[in-house]
Amino acid sequence: MISRVAVDAAYGRIRDRVRRTPVMEFDGITLKLELFQHSGSFKARGSFNSALAQGVPDAGLIAASGGNHGIAVAHVARELDAPAEIYVPSTSSAVKVARIRALGAEVHVAGALYADAQAACDERIAESGALAIHPYDAPLTVAGQGTLGIELEQQIEDLDTVVVATGGGGLAAGIAAALPHVNVVCVEPTNSSCLRAAFDAGEPVDVEIDSIAADSLGGPRIGAIPWAVLRDRATSIVVDDDAIVGARQYLWDRAQLVTEHGGATAFAAVLSGAWRPEPHERVAVIVCGANTDPADLINP
Amino acid sequence: MISRVAVDAAYGRIRDRVRRTPVMEFDGITLKLELFQHSGSFKARGSFNSALAQGVPDAGLIAASGGNHGIAVAHVARELDAPAEIYVPSTSSAVKVARIRALGAEVHVAGALYADAQAACDERIAESGALAIHPYDAPLTVAGQGTLGIELEQQIEDLDTVVVATGGGGLAAGIAAALPHVNVVCVEPTNSSCLRAAFDAGEPVDVEIDSIAADSLGGPRIGAIPWAVLRDRATSIVVDDDAIVGARQYLWDRAQLVTEHGGATAFAAVLSGAWRPEPHERVAVIVCGANTDPADLINP
Repeated sequence: MISRVAVDAAYGRIRDRVRRTPVMEFDGITLKLELFQHSGSFKARGSFNSALAQGVPDAGLIAASGGNHGIAVAHVARELDAPAEIYVPSTSSAVKVARIRALGAEVHVAGALYADAQAACDERIAESGALAIHPYDAPLTVAGQGTLGIELEQQIEDLDTVVVATGGGGLAAGIAAALPHVNVVCVEPTNSSCLRAAFDAGEPVDVEIDSIAADSLGGPRIGAIPWAVLRDRATSIVVDDDAIVGARQYLWDRAQLVTEHGGATAFAAVLSGAWRPEPHERVAVIVCGANTDPADLINP
Repeated sequence: MISRVAVDAAYGRIRDRVRRTPVMEFDGITLKLELFQHSGSFKARGSFNSALAQGVPDAGLIAASGGNHGIAVAHVARELDAPAEIYVPSTSSAVKVARIRALGAEVHVAGALYADAQAACDERIAESGALAIHPYDAPLTVAGQGTLGIELEQQIEDLDTVVVATGGGGLAAGIAAALPHVNVVCVEPTNSSCLRAAFDAGEPVDVEIDSIAADSLGGPRIGAIPWAVLRDRATSIVVDDDAIVGARQYLWDRAQLVTEHGGATAFAAVLSGAWRPEPHERVAVIVCGANTDPADLINP
């Protein structure tokens, strides 16, 4: 089980490598503006921790992800002067794949599904000797994401509850490990809700994915390591795609924040009323990613 | 001359009405993320201060501005349940005029030039009895903008220097008044530089305006009230439009911030090297506005 000790160790490794992202009061809650993290999402935290804890071999870093994790691994490799190979499915977001390439990583398009890309990546790992970084189901990844929780503790007095979008569960589990006395509300899209499915089944199970936020929250099964933390800690909330689209637009209209759909999903739970804080509950809502094309935001 | 006392009084009036915008470390400097202010720019500060100090008559608020000041006055009127009339020139930014309308203000298009809109507005003020709020050349406006300086003082220890985009001079003068011991670096577009022209002439003079940032920084002449503060305090820097466009794109690429061109102008002075801090100089760069259509940002 990931502990605060592991998160503290991660923080010691990465604190000079990541941005301490700001918080801002908004509509009676506190937004943690993690969308301004290097690489455009919190994923830089876990990737830096994984690379720095294990050391980077000459063959560099490798990962399967057409999304924020791929961008983060590419960013970390560039910062550490190492090469990176990223395996992406052909269905990945064009903006995200372009960002991976722009960071200098070698991109391999392998199959239509994430599982195809992962299989091709696994083959390559065996022959290349590169360091593989898992997007969520690895202790160093989860501990690295948890450093966001340490910042929250420093930035917000008497924090009661963190509301966080959940895909594979790495960020939510990391925050839960970092902050043992804080409530963790995990928000998933209705049709991409592997944590909800795990609660229903009593164990991690595969789910179908069909959500506008799938390019960041489309984990097909909650990670075993996150599940071990979250099963006794998380409150599960689901929101539909309309609520996510509305929350993303609202954050642009009212706070001039450009987020990706996954980055607006935690806030969607608050805005839609799918989850409601108690009076006086001190709430932080994580706005976790900005890797999007802002052209589809509506201006008045 | 505007004093810290006036700024403190403004802060007492407006602190519950404005957002305390966050700061973030970035490339060795501190960004003050004022683009997240209500109404999308710092202008809400001065407008709230003007309205709350004087009281709002039944006829409401009135201003001439096709830009951020118009949006701010419309926002303040809506928050205070008062009507607003905004006179805009036909050459105003479409996004900004749409935002003024979306906030419920009555928009009058009057002539092609700001001076035409101001003349039509002046006529209407006389007959309507509405409270007119000047965008920069009024003590309450300047003192209100200065509240940003009070936040900087609370947020950044041992601040040496503030770098701030300058149009009519209201924000720069407000910050200078709030922080008497801090250096104020005023950054203007090469072809919209009324402060530089005032320094050259020894007094405020009219200038020609032709800059991509003219929709927020296109003041034709530095305000007399700002000039009285800035003449002995400001360092004048000019940057060309290419530097501004580059800085706006860089803030999107590296920090996921969507700013308008005027909002990226202060940072442009740092990024282009037009102004360089001394080693160990503690610098805050104001990112002051986000009222833009993000569709023209380039994605990789």
